[in-house]
Amino acid sequence: MLMDDMGWGDLGVFGQPSKETPNLDAMAAQGMLLPNFYTANPLCSPSRAALLTGRLPVRNGFYTTNAHARNAYTPQEIVGGISKDEILLPQMLKKKGYVSKIVGKWHLGHRPQYLPLENGFDEWFGAPNCHFGPYNSSIRPNIPVYNNSEMLGRYYEEFKIDKETGESNLTEMYLMEGLDFILRQSKAQQPFFLYWAADATHAPVYASKRFLGKSQRGRYGDAVMELDYSVGQILAWLQTLGIENNTFVFFTSDNGAALMSAPNEGSNGPFLCGKETTFEGGMREPAIAWWPGHIKGGTVSFQLANVMDLFTTSLALAGISPPDDRTFDGMDLTPVLLSQIHQLQDRPIFFYRGNELMAVRLGQYKAHYWTWSNSWKEFRTGINFCPGQDVPGVTTHEQKEHTMQPIIFHLGRDPGEKFPLSVLTKEYQDVLSRISPFVEQHKKSLVPGIPQLNMCDMAVMNWAPAGCEKLGKCLKGPESKPWKCDWPH
Amino acid sequence: MLMDDMGWGDLGVFGQPSKETPNLDAMAAQGMLLPNFYTANPLCSPSRAALLTGRLPVRNGFYTTNAHARNAYTPQEIVGGISKDEILLPQMLKKKGYVSKIVGKWHLGHRPQYLPLENGFDEWFGAPNCHFGPYNSSIRPNIPVYNNSEMLGRYYEEFKIDKETGESNLTEMYLMEGLDFILRQSKAQQPFFLYWAADATHAPVYASKRFLGKSQRGRYGDAVMELDYSVGQILAWLQTLGIENNTFVFFTSDNGAALMSAPNEGSNGPFLCGKETTFEGGMREPAIAWWPGHIKGGTVSFQLANVMDLFTTSLALAGISPPDDRTFDGMDLTPVLLSQIHQLQDRPIFFYRGNELMAVRLGQYKAHYWTWSNSWKEFRTGINFCPGQDVPGVTTHEQKEHTMQPIIFHLGRDPGEKFPLSVLTKEYQDVLSRISPFVEQHKKSLVPGIPQLNMCDMAVMNWAPAGCEKLGKCLKGPESKPWKCDWPH
Repeated sequence: MLMDDMGWGDLGVFGQPSKETPNLDAMAAQGMLLPNFYTANPLCSPSRAALLTGRLPVRNGFYTTNAHARNAYTPQEIVGGISKDEILLPQMLKKKGYVSKIVGKWHLGHRPQYLPLENGFDEWFGAPNCHFGPYNSSIRPNIPVYNNSEMLGRYYEEFKIDKETGESNLTEMYLMEGLDFILRQSKAQQPFFLYWAADATHAPVYASKRFLGKSQRGRYGDAVMELDYSVGQILAWLQTLGIENNTFVFFTSDNGAALMSAPNEGSNGPFLCGKETTFEGGMREPAIAWWPGHIKGGTVSFQLANVMDLFTTSLALAGISPPDDRTFDGMDLTPVLLSQIHQLQDRPIFFYRGNELMAVRLGQYKAHYWTWSNSWKEFRTGINFCPGQDVPGVTTHEQKEHTMQPIIFHLGRDPGEKFPLSVLTKEYQDVLSRISPFVEQHKKSLVPGIPQLNMCDMAVMNWAPAGCEKLGKCLKGPESKPWKCDWPH
Repeated sequence: MLMDDMGWGDLGVFGQPSKETPNLDAMAAQGMLLPNFYTANPLCSPSRAALLTGRLPVRNGFYTTNAHARNAYTPQEIVGGISKDEILLPQMLKKKGYVSKIVGKWHLGHRPQYLPLENGFDEWFGAPNCHFGPYNSSIRPNIPVYNNSEMLGRYYEEFKIDKETGESNLTEMYLMEGLDFILRQSKAQQPFFLYWAADATHAPVYASKRFLGKSQRGRYGDAVMELDYSVGQILAWLQTLGIENNTFVFFTSDNGAALMSAPNEGSNGPFLCGKETTFEGGMREPAIAWWPGHIKGGTVSFQLANVMDLFTTSLALAGISPPDDRTFDGMDLTPVLLSQIHQLQDRPIFFYRGNELMAVRLGQYKAHYWTWSNSWKEFRTGINFCPGQDVPGVTTHEQKEHTMQPIIFHLGRDPGEKFPLSVLTKEYQDVLSRISPFVEQHKKSLVPGIPQLNMCDMAVMNWAPAGCEKLGKCLKGPESKPWKCDWPH
């Protein structure tokens, strides 16, 4: 269950003052909380590609080289998508007979060859891109909503999102799709993988009518409440069907809360900045593992972990060996989840922007080799990824290199990345000498994938998705005029 | 149970990433969490005076008029203390036969007439002032530790605090004193009031040997872990003695975490700034109510509440009517705690600095009439109450008046006080017209107490506390040369 732009601090159990998530809090009480869980990138597409391939975006191609250290994703003018050279989790799980469904946002490319059913999923209900819009169809088509390999309609047309009131029943539809899939597989005693990727907390934030106005936080909190309710319904459904002891469930988010959509924004708790940045607010994610009878209730593991571990862990749980022809970035969390080991495994967490290694966490320490939030030019237009936060030399508006003398924080004492260790201390020198070999090894052995997010073209937009002809919803796009995409962040 | 400088965000249940408080988290799971609970002042002494008198510091005299809007407290050169005109909670409880003990920090004046046993408490183990030191006894005596009305020794002398290692067994002693008192009253079937005011999270932060180095946060987290352990021991003790259904327990803190003691500092979670300020980080407090068989487990109440409510609520629980000759600022929380009502009571929360009304919260809204964190002069010397935080026009370094057009935040959508409502909106005008009558009424009816924190004098320091002669620990102070205390914040 992967949320969209939901922040670490949006869960009651992670400190949201308005405590809107009783179901997630209960999930944590019945399962394991992982306070040190990370995404692979502070932006949706690369994060999702990393989850499904078990590899860093710089390896799986979900990055750009158009400019230095830029975040890139898959708007509908993107030419690229997930490479056929990558192996996705549902493709692996198929080896052991798993049936897979994605419900919600895909974001790994929207051209036909990149869609879920071409890449290992058996079923899909959802959309290939974000729910931005509405668009004037002559300039830009609205995003299609697919049922499996054919479109069912488009956002703002057949699938309503009222930007004025924030009303949309998409989360409700995603819930129903999830419950129905689980029911069918359960009845057939069929092993399954459900990738439930609701996107209500991504701008424009929406909720169903019965949740609108119910939270203390406005529309954002309403969306959180509906997602929390849906999680509760899914867990309860597993219990109703009697398959809860047989179903591993993981809840997390694709990146930190977007702090530029104020005041209708999420919370990154005590962490610095948010989405688009490699500070903790952009990369640290809420994470709960749930598996009654296997994962002990009410446990907390401080193991450093990330979204790519879910690939490796899922294969381990399914008894499948990962391919040996490529590098995976995840570790098998099974011994941690099952409390078979309590000693924390020393492993680095890498923080990228584009193909630049911005920062590394090892143990309690995080070393920033490059810093920036966003450009002065953007910042001066009012785009601010760190509103109300200003750590001198850290939340910089120009790209600052610190590779010779990284800025190092102790995230235990200083989770907010406010007080860099003095370079004159023994602690700094000790940490640096422990981190440096990991970084050298990583850089030396890195084989970057072909960057998929460099080229844009208005001709590739969702003009005529499969099935459009049956609905009379085919549009005619312009001629192909590709350009190098401009990634401002 | 009143903590010292512990922040809202220091509890696992309020989002601390290193989750050091399993006992407090369990207390919340067995009781009621109050996420909208406030102190009366962002500094120790006035906050504690408000708790014990049920009245705002501007009424009970715990403020200064030496300069505009300054925080004042009771260092050992203070001349004043709690006025004999005030009635303290233990004095009231005595009417129904309660025996009262304070364990830990008093901070309501250290001259003989101001001490706990002169003001309603039957027993005391602890100190009158903060545990700053060590001092050269010719210039400034070390702070005495009292057992009831006589000193037992002094900090850094008989009562060790190792500032190098952070080791001190004071919390352990406070725990033992608390357990012993409970045991004696329980055996005697004697109604009791225990005011457990441990101060390990106040600088210089300390912990007992077996907790040192145990947390992820360094010394501060070690102190939190020991306090959490102690809370767990006290609750378990009530259960062991079989009096848990008969004992109302409340946990909170005197003010927000001090953010100038970095990196060994606490967390105010998502809130702005900390101790010394009237932003949420200075005033919002962790709060848990526990009373098995009466308070329903796992409940959350969003009722706006504050430390003065504990006075009024305690009297209500004991069946005592408050005196009718003065104004009290608290409300009786009993119906909230016992879930007899679920509708939130509309009531203002006032935020003072000195005798200036800085801000008011009503419902989800908070209006700032004055803003400042600290002076430019102080800020430029490195004293910063908002490290890493900078909200333009809000975290100001000069005292800014906004009484004609207060800065208003919606704390539901924006708990971090980052995005003021536009004065041009209907929402702003509606809120202002709802808050203004409360403010006018409050100001019109306010009768300030005589300010107790204006005068300082080296002669009044703890040179020769009662009992010093028995220990050979009497010191000779200088002649009286009173001056108007300088309160920089």
